[in-house]
Amino acid sequence: MDKFKRTLIAIPLALLLSLSSLADDWEPLLNGNSFDGWKQLGGEAKFTIKNGEVTGTSVAGTPNSFMTTKRDYTDFVLEFEVWVQDGLNSGVQFRSMSKPDFKDGRVHGYQFELDTAERAWTAGIYDEANRGWLYPVDYNEPARSLFKHEQWNTARIECVGNEVQTFLNGKQVSHLIDEKAISGFIGLQVHSISGSELAGYKVRWRNLRINTKSPKLSPPEGIYVRNIAPNTLSDSEKRQGWSFLFDGKKTNAWKSSKSGNAFSADGWTVGDGALTINHGDGGGDIITKKTFGSFELDFEFRLTKGANSGVKYFVANHAKPGADSPRYLGLEYQVLDDDVHPDAKQGVVGNRTCASLYDLIPRYRKVHNRTVPLNIGDWNHGRLVSLPDGTIQHWLNGFKVVEYERGSNIYDALVARSKYADIENFGLSEKGHILLQDHNDEVSYRSIKIREL
Amino acid sequence: MDKFKRTLIAIPLALLLSLSSLADDWEPLLNGNSFDGWKQLGGEAKFTIKNGEVTGTSVAGTPNSFMTTKRDYTDFVLEFEVWVQDGLNSGVQFRSMSKPDFKDGRVHGYQFELDTAERAWTAGIYDEANRGWLYPVDYNEPARSLFKHEQWNTARIECVGNEVQTFLNGKQVSHLIDEKAISGFIGLQVHSISGSELAGYKVRWRNLRINTKSPKLSPPEGIYVRNIAPNTLSDSEKRQGWSFLFDGKKTNAWKSSKSGNAFSADGWTVGDGALTINHGDGGGDIITKKTFGSFELDFEFRLTKGANSGVKYFVANHAKPGADSPRYLGLEYQVLDDDVHPDAKQGVVGNRTCASLYDLIPRYRKVHNRTVPLNIGDWNHGRLVSLPDGTIQHWLNGFKVVEYERGSNIYDALVARSKYADIENFGLSEKGHILLQDHNDEVSYRSIKIREL
Repeated sequence: MDKFKRTLIAIPLALLLSLSSLADDWEPLLNGNSFDGWKQLGGEAKFTIKNGEVTGTSVAGTPNSFMTTKRDYTDFVLEFEVWVQDGLNSGVQFRSMSKPDFKDGRVHGYQFELDTAERAWTAGIYDEANRGWLYPVDYNEPARSLFKHEQWNTARIECVGNEVQTFLNGKQVSHLIDEKAISGFIGLQVHSISGSELAGYKVRWRNLRINTKSPKLSPPEGIYVRNIAPNTLSDSEKRQGWSFLFDGKKTNAWKSSKSGNAFSADGWTVGDGALTINHGDGGGDIITKKTFGSFELDFEFRLTKGANSGVKYFVANHAKPGADSPRYLGLEYQVLDDDVHPDAKQGVVGNRTCASLYDLIPRYRKVHNRTVPLNIGDWNHGRLVSLPDGTIQHWLNGFKVVEYERGSNIYDALVARSKYADIENFGLSEKGHILLQDHNDEVSYRSIKIREL
Repeated sequence: MDKFKRTLIAIPLALLLSLSSLADDWEPLLNGNSFDGWKQLGGEAKFTIKNGEVTGTSVAGTPNSFMTTKRDYTDFVLEFEVWVQDGLNSGVQFRSMSKPDFKDGRVHGYQFELDTAERAWTAGIYDEANRGWLYPVDYNEPARSLFKHEQWNTARIECVGNEVQTFLNGKQVSHLIDEKAISGFIGLQVHSISGSELAGYKVRWRNLRINTKSPKLSPPEGIYVRNIAPNTLSDSEKRQGWSFLFDGKKTNAWKSSKSGNAFSADGWTVGDGALTINHGDGGGDIITKKTFGSFELDFEFRLTKGANSGVKYFVANHAKPGADSPRYLGLEYQVLDDDVHPDAKQGVVGNRTCASLYDLIPRYRKVHNRTVPLNIGDWNHGRLVSLPDGTIQHWLNGFKVVEYERGSNIYDALVARSKYADIENFGLSEKGHILLQDHNDEVSYRSIKIREL
């Protein structure tokens, strides 16, 4: 083989493909030494450009600043390289907007996060000045180590229809399905700084290029898909094995826990895409017909003021043999208005607050030093993970707030001094039902999905 | 630079060195197609040799079988490659013996473990037919993933003086200091099998070679050193920052918890290399003068029948301001004769048994499906690890039996329903004393060592 052939073979196939599509469908977003086609919005942080490389410099006492494209983009693949000075927070806006009728023109919309802090959420998706965190990178723990500090990182953002994927240094970080496709500008952010310590800190971008002619989603890498569109299952989720327990309409996955028979509409209402417990009707709990061992459960819940409910799992019938009626008990992801319902103050150290493992383990109130949000009167996102090795996780609005090992020595010690102390084998069946608790308060559920692991 | 020079540089320096020392000091242990200089001991498993490659084949109904060198070796470095069929357990004996006056000639001594099971302790050190596990690989968790299933693995055993190091596929696995250097044979083991399912399974060795002329220990990789020689600190431990809290003689690291003054000999005896609580003398607890935050604590303890003591850590004075006497409380590694002392049955789910976190978390009775040994009347090995991230581990005789996160939501929940419920900030001080509990029972301690992390 001659030298020329060897050289050719040494170029990875992926690079060749990307070079060929560059020739056809990619265009640079910034060139040379000019911000032609761009404008600055928000604060007064400094942006400079030289040979296509942008430097953003933080300035004390100014809000978040953005260098943004004048034109909007809907479906595209965006690639760039980025270098961030340690201590700075930054980001790249996409499908973003600035409108006089929304917070006085404040820049809002998707942000590809750039995070040099210990939290390490770079390439997570944040909805700037709007809904907050859509894809916190705790959903994809291994991706938290992808970011290279004070080195050039390669980034990729794919937006096709209502689906968004982000990549950092060649690995997928986020996978988001939103309610609908959004059109908007692209913008480079320099975050506001508190005090003046970080003044003069720099973030740099280069080789920004965009493909709007043939935008395609890369084959997903199987990471958790956060689907915000209520009561929908995306193709990506279906491929991962997700299915509905409640899709906004059908209740056929459920039965009454009282009779053990079919789902009874007594006390429960299906409407407006939600399954709602009627206040004071006493319809009783409902349980899934199927039982589950290792699974991921995704759901949204909406509490009225002072309301109480719960999502139980590894639910088994603990009635004595020959008893008249079943007695379904299990581990409970508490669903509660912590501020108003008195049970939040019962138990110990907050182990009856919302998203806690009821009467056993309190949820963390803060994660990464940020208060975990809980919205009364609006939808919250709950997530339950039961791994084959016995690890159980409770998630609330994107934050992992409880983690424990079912059946461990610590689990046994907790149960032995709880209200379940006298229940033999409590929470330890190999598989169990999922149960929605009717506490006679108005609480709604929707987008209840499960996949077995 | 010409092509020849480039080729030379491409050969790693280590390989060059090893090639050069091969020429001088290494000799093959097996050659060709003969077991000349070797003999089979123990069971009737089949050993064959072809072109220097040995195949051991398991046979039903026969005990552990060994193909052993006729001569003994004391100081040496041994290298070999090994391939093990999944399902089989095997090993390589070194410094081993077969004597008529020890268990009727049963082969005993150090074994380099070959472990295809989930436990994955390959290259750990087991004392065959004698003291059992000396270096379980749980001491060195990352090394549990080094073994390559049904592929050739490279192994290295270094014995110099009373120090032993093992390596697997280029990484250190074990580091053992024994009481004295031992001389003995080298032997290839085929383990006995239960039933006949594994009959015919194979283990293969090749490229066995030994260096007895210039045996040297490789620079240690900083893994945990298990030092069995009582009240000694090896150079390797000193380099890691270990120091004595009790070396068999000196008590100057300690003071009385009652007076807050110097160590009082009341109730405590120093003798025979041990620090012993006198039965019924009421001398009171002793605490270290220094306090510790992140540390590893290593100790040995010997319980008399029915005895009770404890090793407490993160010990702080919880007396009310102005109180007459101090009140030292902390997290307790329980030290107890579980079978005889009644406290083992108190608390819940065994959370007052030996090596448990007293009244909070029971120790695991089994690890890797093996019962954790506890020897009454003989020395046991205790180990406490307090990592900078808050993780605490209790070890008993080589097994990790308790692990928890100090100050976590689970920790708070456990304490809130324990005998410490009313102690403010229990166990949560940044640093704390180490305390040895005087429970008026005869319990001895020795080899108490600590290093700060």
